[in-house]
Amino acid sequence: MADAETKQLIAEMAARARIAARRLALMSSAEKSRALRAAAAAIRADRDAIVAANAEDMAAAGAAGLSGAMLDRLRLDAARVEATAAGVDAVAGLDDPVGKQIERVERPNGLELTRVRIPIGVIGIIYESRPNVTADAGALCAMSGNTAILRGGSEAIRSNRAIHAALARGLAEGGMPADAVQLVPVTDRAAVGAMLTAEGAIDMVVPRGGKGLVARVQAEARVPVLAHLDGLNHTYIDRAADPAMARDLALNAKMRRTGICGATETLLIDRGFADPAPVLAALADAGCELRGDAEIRAIEPRVTAAGAEDWDTEYLDAILSVKLVDGVDAAMDHIAAHGSHHTDAIVTGDAATAERFLGEVDSAIVMWNASTQFADGGEFGLGAEIGISTGRLHARGPVALEGLTTYKWVVRGAGQARP
Amino acid sequence: MADAETKQLIAEMAARARIAARRLALMSSAEKSRALRAAAAAIRADRDAIVAANAEDMAAAGAAGLSGAMLDRLRLDAARVEATAAGVDAVAGLDDPVGKQIERVERPNGLELTRVRIPIGVIGIIYESRPNVTADAGALCAMSGNTAILRGGSEAIRSNRAIHAALARGLAEGGMPADAVQLVPVTDRAAVGAMLTAEGAIDMVVPRGGKGLVARVQAEARVPVLAHLDGLNHTYIDRAADPAMARDLALNAKMRRTGICGATETLLIDRGFADPAPVLAALADAGCELRGDAEIRAIEPRVTAAGAEDWDTEYLDAILSVKLVDGVDAAMDHIAAHGSHHTDAIVTGDAATAERFLGEVDSAIVMWNASTQFADGGEFGLGAEIGISTGRLHARGPVALEGLTTYKWVVRGAGQARP
Repeated sequence: MADAETKQLIAEMAARARIAARRLALMSSAEKSRALRAAAAAIRADRDAIVAANAEDMAAAGAAGLSGAMLDRLRLDAARVEATAAGVDAVAGLDDPVGKQIERVERPNGLELTRVRIPIGVIGIIYESRPNVTADAGALCAMSGNTAILRGGSEAIRSNRAIHAALARGLAEGGMPADAVQLVPVTDRAAVGAMLTAEGAIDMVVPRGGKGLVARVQAEARVPVLAHLDGLNHTYIDRAADPAMARDLALNAKMRRTGICGATETLLIDRGFADPAPVLAALADAGCELRGDAEIRAIEPRVTAAGAEDWDTEYLDAILSVKLVDGVDAAMDHIAAHGSHHTDAIVTGDAATAERFLGEVDSAIVMWNASTQFADGGEFGLGAEIGISTGRLHARGPVALEGLTTYKWVVRGAGQARP
Repeated sequence: MADAETKQLIAEMAARARIAARRLALMSSAEKSRALRAAAAAIRADRDAIVAANAEDMAAAGAAGLSGAMLDRLRLDAARVEATAAGVDAVAGLDDPVGKQIERVERPNGLELTRVRIPIGVIGIIYESRPNVTADAGALCAMSGNTAILRGGSEAIRSNRAIHAALARGLAEGGMPADAVQLVPVTDRAAVGAMLTAEGAIDMVVPRGGKGLVARVQAEARVPVLAHLDGLNHTYIDRAADPAMARDLALNAKMRRTGICGATETLLIDRGFADPAPVLAALADAGCELRGDAEIRAIEPRVTAAGAEDWDTEYLDAILSVKLVDGVDAAMDHIAAHGSHHTDAIVTGDAATAERFLGEVDSAIVMWNASTQFADGGEFGLGAEIGISTGRLHARGPVALEGLTTYKWVVRGAGQARP
């Protein structure tokens, strides 16, 4: 398609989404849940068609030479389709924030003011190879009363179309407007640009994918973006840390899963901490590559030399930069200089030091005596996650249904005129 | 200054603001209040110097041929300086949202999660001729723990410098960092551009001024903007409205003050409403120019013909477009097509119709049996107002201290590793 046609297509989809949003905003929680359960059932019913469509994507991706990791993200089998359907059922069971009263004030003149949660409106989701995002993100938007415009990766287009066909059919059977969740039918990159510049037509864009995608979205977007670019997270072991806890948390924070955004990338150790050697040995024994300066290498010989760039690198791998610092102030200065405002943790038995860290470290998530790997909507009890935001406005950290809502002021009077 | 130098200047100011923000975020409410009261006292102490600086601005503005309305906005006398100082004292007495717990959850694994309000960080304020904004906006930012970068209009630069000098001296005497509230010392337009593109350095920009300024800020900003461009507000008189209430509210909503963003610009009257003539007569008698079609002119002969553009025009003047509609659905369709999502009101004695309007009209503020002129932070009990937002994310409607905060997740554990 020519770029102008693509732009026109997105504008038309967004206009339909806006009309559908007016209807969707009025559906009750029970009505939305019912529609989502119908959608989950439709995905199950279409399982074979979805797997067959995915096999075509996989064949094309293999022929195009995609990497093993990308192929694994793309792949769907019966179990993954079932997991996708189960995810939609889980969203159907979440507590719906729409209609909730945030605040109620009665003014001296008798006006009653309430602030009430409402859907944001039209949400754009831009994602890469994982086709299950089609159902996950579509379900989260629909359950929170938002309409969604989904733009998945070209490598997954057949899988996305198959999942979307089931989802949309189920939602419509369940009483939702046909345009509640729309999939951009074309794969040209201009569709992404058109979504990112659809100010006033698309209310928020959520990118789901690698750093390249997120960086492009953040650079080009004129529409608000909910995202995090980096998870350059720190675990700081204070002088008052319990040695065994420090070792276990450092190991878990780095090595449980190295590729998630909540993984620790830099370990800061207080010079006053008595026992750094077992911490570093445990990490090295677990197969973690450690990078540090001569001081760290003197503690653990398997440490290799860190360069200046290591303090600003999100490895997403079994690599950890390690540094000795002079207490919590130096740790916080390092985090302020190198962190990405995602998740940072302190390990200490000293409550006063912990509270200083929790109060002063300027990250979406701050933790005391816990693994940074808990930075996750499911672990936070949100039931799901549309994304994790390191932005400063609207919603921060793991975002689920509440972050997909905004509010309106509702004023009820008895004829009051303003004096 | 060359544009590159201006850009560098803003970058340096923002960097200093970020450092100051780390300290400011840790001040208690009492400490911030004390500093603001010292600033109010400093403004009072500098009254004569401020009035003298303003006289120079006034002379230059008069020589440059500024309009009477602009000169009045620019003018300061002893009483206006006192009102400015009193405004700062009032902000010092507001309830500080920083540190408030929004939510607390204990997870089955024993992790305690709280969401706690924190300042946003660095706020840019871009404003025009009213020099009192220097103190008002600076005080609101400081009380909410944010640092402010103020960029006032060139016509008010001497007044702004004099007010800022007093404000900054008082805040510093009261224990705030010297860079808590900074005034951009140069008047070239490039400073605005530099602020609007300072992504990551300035967290949010609030424009305060006319439509031209707001439109420029919204068009050029890469930084989030809190603003409203239009207040194209509607009052809808339903068939079940009390005739006297309908007349009084229409009159107040339009004519109390015609130049404020909460003024009604379009009156929609249900064809089923029995008594439109007295409403229109009261408006015309009060000096309001009415515009409508033949049907409306048949009711009130002083009505002139409305053009298509009238339904999309924010007059900010004693002019009102008037239209007959077929009930609440047609009224809501008209508002959806022509409104600006600011403030819309229904007058009706029918609670079910009212609740439909309150639920379905997609505006930051919706009202039942009240004048749209109440759309104001003071009237909403917020004590002040940094601005009114028609955006959909973060804060909507009148925004004061709470809208100048965000939150962080604080996780307290006892050594939990993620399984």
